[in-house]
Amino acid sequence: MKRIAFLLVAVATLAGVVAFTARASGPADEEAAPVFGVKIPPGYRDWRLISVAHEAGNLNDFRAILGNDVAIKAYREGKLPFPDGTIIVRLAWSYVPSEENNKVFGRAQSFVAGPPINVQFMVKDSSKYPTTGGWGFAQFKDGKPADEALHKTCFPCHEPAKARDFVFTHYAP
Amino acid sequence: MKRIAFLLVAVATLAGVVAFTARASGPADEEAAPVFGVKIPPGYRDWRLISVAHEAGNLNDFRAILGNDVAIKAYREGKLPFPDGTIIVRLAWSYVPSEENNKVFGRAQSFVAGPPINVQFMVKDSSKYPTTGGWGFAQFKDGKPADEALHKTCFPCHEPAKARDFVFTHYAP
Repeated sequence: MKRIAFLLVAVATLAGVVAFTARASGPADEEAAPVFGVKIPPGYRDWRLISVAHEAGNLNDFRAILGNDVAIKAYREGKLPFPDGTIIVRLAWSYVPSEENNKVFGRAQSFVAGPPINVQFMVKDSSKYPTTGGWGFAQFKDGKPADEALHKTCFPCHEPAKARDFVFTHYAP
Repeated sequence: MKRIAFLLVAVATLAGVVAFTARASGPADEEAAPVFGVKIPPGYRDWRLISVAHEAGNLNDFRAILGNDVAIKAYREGKLPFPDGTIIVRLAWSYVPSEENNKVFGRAQSFVAGPPINVQFMVKDSSKYPTTGGWGFAQFKDGKPADEALHKTCFPCHEPAKARDFVFTHYAP
């Protein structure tokens, strides 16, 4: 009887661990993005805020930029270049007017995050990515990575920010 | 000798605790905001992101809305009303164009968080704040609370959002 109870507890614990792991790391068949081989880091939506941005024009998106603990520490200490292990994520949503907020303000002035557009990552690993400033780049939409052609545009676009280790976003206090 | 060593350890420990507490909770002379008596919750800048917003018009600010663990859990579970212990913070910065980003995009389209404007809190405590939907409100600028007149405007402004427990911000996935 004791053995059965032990087995039941063991199985329940194992099931719990498996369920937790699945939640924490996303689907098991999660794809790596092309070119840099970056996968979606588990738990990134829980990371701390670096800053926010709005790209108008054709993009017309709302952005939040979050960082893992290594990134936040480096930002707050003003440390450049970012150390290996830094991961920065840029979430983007549609930039949409809020009718309910506008009613309260009495005029059309309020814009909020609408449906999600995509998620981008910068992963610092200077030995793995020596030709792109030490950074691996990735873009995902609904958990699926963008194609190779898109990923080849990441580093050229970030090159103008070389003086800040190829990172555009400043920390918002 | 043992007693002296013990005292030294005790004093060192106490000093450590005091130093830690000072770091975690801000300056010791931190003021409570009028009307609701809310103080700045320690560590709020490390809280997780709920969503982002932009108020154009006279405000012209960029906003990030963060929540403590109770808030994030309630949001993710779609739980209304928010439970006691919920704290939501709205950080606001000036909404400023980014010249360096615009250079990369090749046109004026990029807006980022500029200097901080102020910080607002909503604290759920249904026994403490029975006449304002269970919420206490506070606004601080550079660590100093706004005046009583301003704090009297908080609840009337949030009343239209009664169906969502007086909270405007939706969770951005």
